[in-house]
Amino acid sequence: MNNFSFQNPTRIHFGKGQIAAIANEIPADAKVLITYGGGSIKKNGTLDQVLEALKSHTVLQFGGIEPNPSYETLMEAVELARKENIDFLLAVGGGSVIDGTKFIAAAIHFEGNPWSILSEGAALGKVVPAGNVLTLPATGSESNCGAVVTRRETKDKLAFLNPAVYPKFAVLDPETTYSLPQGQSANGVVDAFVHTMEQYLTVRDNAHMQDRYAEGQLLTLISEGPKVLKTPEDYGVRSTIMWTANQALNGLIGQGVPHDWSTHMIGHELTAMHGIDHAQTLAIVLPSLMQKMRDQKAPKILQYAERVWDIQEGSDEERISLAIEKTRNFFESMGVKTSLSDYGVGEADIPALISQLERHGMTALGEGKNITLDVSKAILTGAL
Amino acid sequence: MNNFSFQNPTRIHFGKGQIAAIANEIPADAKVLITYGGGSIKKNGTLDQVLEALKSHTVLQFGGIEPNPSYETLMEAVELARKENIDFLLAVGGGSVIDGTKFIAAAIHFEGNPWSILSEGAALGKVVPAGNVLTLPATGSESNCGAVVTRRETKDKLAFLNPAVYPKFAVLDPETTYSLPQGQSANGVVDAFVHTMEQYLTVRDNAHMQDRYAEGQLLTLISEGPKVLKTPEDYGVRSTIMWTANQALNGLIGQGVPHDWSTHMIGHELTAMHGIDHAQTLAIVLPSLMQKMRDQKAPKILQYAERVWDIQEGSDEERISLAIEKTRNFFESMGVKTSLSDYGVGEADIPALISQLERHGMTALGEGKNITLDVSKAILTGAL
Repeated sequence: MNNFSFQNPTRIHFGKGQIAAIANEIPADAKVLITYGGGSIKKNGTLDQVLEALKSHTVLQFGGIEPNPSYETLMEAVELARKENIDFLLAVGGGSVIDGTKFIAAAIHFEGNPWSILSEGAALGKVVPAGNVLTLPATGSESNCGAVVTRRETKDKLAFLNPAVYPKFAVLDPETTYSLPQGQSANGVVDAFVHTMEQYLTVRDNAHMQDRYAEGQLLTLISEGPKVLKTPEDYGVRSTIMWTANQALNGLIGQGVPHDWSTHMIGHELTAMHGIDHAQTLAIVLPSLMQKMRDQKAPKILQYAERVWDIQEGSDEERISLAIEKTRNFFESMGVKTSLSDYGVGEADIPALISQLERHGMTALGEGKNITLDVSKAILTGAL
Repeated sequence: MNNFSFQNPTRIHFGKGQIAAIANEIPADAKVLITYGGGSIKKNGTLDQVLEALKSHTVLQFGGIEPNPSYETLMEAVELARKENIDFLLAVGGGSVIDGTKFIAAAIHFEGNPWSILSEGAALGKVVPAGNVLTLPATGSESNCGAVVTRRETKDKLAFLNPAVYPKFAVLDPETTYSLPQGQSANGVVDAFVHTMEQYLTVRDNAHMQDRYAEGQLLTLISEGPKVLKTPEDYGVRSTIMWTANQALNGLIGQGVPHDWSTHMIGHELTAMHGIDHAQTLAIVLPSLMQKMRDQKAPKILQYAERVWDIQEGSDEERISLAIEKTRNFFESMGVKTSLSDYGVGEADIPALISQLERHGMTALGEGKNITLDVSKAILTGAL
C-alpha cells in the first residue's frame, strides 16, 4: 500500500426528507445562489422543497447549466454571483450542475483568467462555500473535490481537483431520483461502475481492504443496478444506488493505490467531439481497454473474474475473456451501448480524437503510463 | 436503509514516515501535551520521531495512561493541562491512550464534575483540539468520536460519544506496530472483527453497500489477521490490518443501519470486574451471543455464513451452527481464548456481573432491545 493523506470533510445528509437539513447548513445571513440544470427539479418538486427549506434566506437562482457544463454558461453564473455579492452556492441537480458549481465557486474571486483553473490547474484564492442537493446518483461529485468543465468553443473537456472545493454538505434523498428518465438512471449506474473499476483494475501490491471495498461496490451495482430500470420507485433500490455511486468516487477506495483513469480521458474526447453521454463513452472504452491491456492487468482481471463474476473455470485467458465479456454485457443489459458504431462514430473519426488527446497532454495514460497515443488508437479501433 | 447524517472530519496520514506530518498539523504557537501509556513508545523509537517532528513546538509529556484508561489517572492529566494552559493534545499510543485523551480534551474546560461527561453524557463546552499517532490498530478511536473510561473506585467502565472530540488528525504508520507483543496484535484483530460484527450482524432491511463493506472487512481480517502473528514485520500485512481496524470503527459501515453493541456492553463488565483484556471479553461474549440470538439473527447469520465463510451446504440450522463455530475458532486461532473458564471466571461470578449491567442501565440491549438481564445471564452462562 502506498502512503496517503486523506480527509473528506463533506457532511452527508442521507434519506427521505433530508432536504430540510439545508436550512441549518447555510448561514442565516448568507446570500445564496441556487444553481440548476434544465428544470427537472421544478417538475419533480425538488426545487419547491429547497425553497421551503430556505424560506428565511435570501435566495437567487441560476438555471440552464447543461450536461457537460460549459465554461461559457458557467461564466455567466460567475458574473451574476459577482454582481450580486453571492456568498453561498447551492447546486441542485446531478454531477454536471455540481461540477459546474465547483468551478463557479472557484472562479468568483479568482484573479486572472478563470480558464487557467482548468487548463493549468492554477492555485485558487478565496473559494465561495457551496453545498448541494443531489438528484442523479452517478459521479460522486457531491462529496469529492473534482470537477470537469467543457469549453464549447474549442471542444476542450478538462478536469480540476482542489480540496478547497469540497462541498460543505450534500443531501442525498433517494426520492428525488424516482422521476429520472430511464437512460439517466442507467448512465448513473454505469458511471459509478467505471469509477470503481478505474481505481481497482490496476497492477499493484495487494491492497486488500481497498480491493474488497471496490468489489463490494461492483457486486452491489451488478445486483441492484438493473432493478432501477424495473422498479424505479423502489426506495430500497434507489437508496442503495445513491449510496454506492457516492462511495465509488468519494476518495475512499482510491487511497494508497495506483489508478488508471484512461477510460475517462479517452471518453472525455468522445463527449467533447461527438456529444456522446459521459457514461456511454465509458461503456464504449472500458471493455476495449481491458482487452488491449489484458496482459498487463491479467492478475487483477483474474481476481475480478473470480470475486465479482464468480468465474471459476477455464484457463487464465478464458477467464479473462469471459470477465471482459460479462463487463460489456452488464453495460448492454443496462441499455447502454458499447460500440462506437452504435453512436455513429467510425474509423475515420479516430485520428481527430487522437489529436485532441495529444493536445490535452494525454500521451502516457494508465497506471503504467504506457497507454500512449498508439495504444489509445488501438483501444478506439477495438471499440468500433 | 435508515436516514443518517455523517461527517468524519479526521485527516488520516497513512504510511511509513508519516509522523513527520504532525509538524504542520499542530499550530506552531500551540503548547502541546503529549499523552502516552506504559512507555513502549520510548523503546520502539516512536516518541523520538514525534519529538523530532515537534522540535520547534513547546511540548510537555504525560505518561502512564493505563489499558482501560482510568478516570483517576486522566484527571491528573487534566490538572496538569489546566495548570500549564495546554492548548493542543497529542495522544501517542493505542485506543486506551486515545480514548483517555478525548476525555482529557473534554474535561479541561468542563464546568462541573467531569465524571458527568461519562455518567450522564453531559453537554460539552470548549474542547481542546487533539490529534494522535496510533501505535496499536484495534479500536478505531484514532478517527472516531467515542471514548471509554473506567472509574477504578466503582468499577464503572463507561462510554461517551461526542462529535466535538473527533481527532483533528491521525497518523497511522504501520512500522510503529512491528514491535507490538503478539498478544496485543492478536487482540487488535479480534477487536476490529467484533466492531464490524456489531454493526453488521443485526436484523434489518437490506443495506447492500454496508453489508458488502462489512463482509470485506471480515474477509480481510480472516485472511490477513493470522499473518501478523507469523510475520510481524511484514509491512503489507501490518498496513492492511492498520487500515482495516480503522475502517471497522470510523463510522462508515454503521450509517443507516441498526447496531447491536451488547457484546461490548457485557464485555465491559468483565473487564471492569475481572481485568480481562477488552478483546478477550469480546471473544468470550460474541460466540455465545450468536448462539442465544440465533433465531432472531438467522437470516443475517446465514448471509454471513455464505459470504464470509463460504458455507454452502447443510440445513439452515447446520450452517448457522458452523458459522458460530468458525467465528469462535478464528478467535482461538489468533490465540485469544473464548471461554470464561479460560480466564478463571465461574458461574458464581455471573450474578455480580448482571448486577453491574443493571446498575449501568444495560437492561434492554441489542437491535431488538430484547437482550434483557435474563438473556445476558444466559449469554454469560453459555460462555462458561
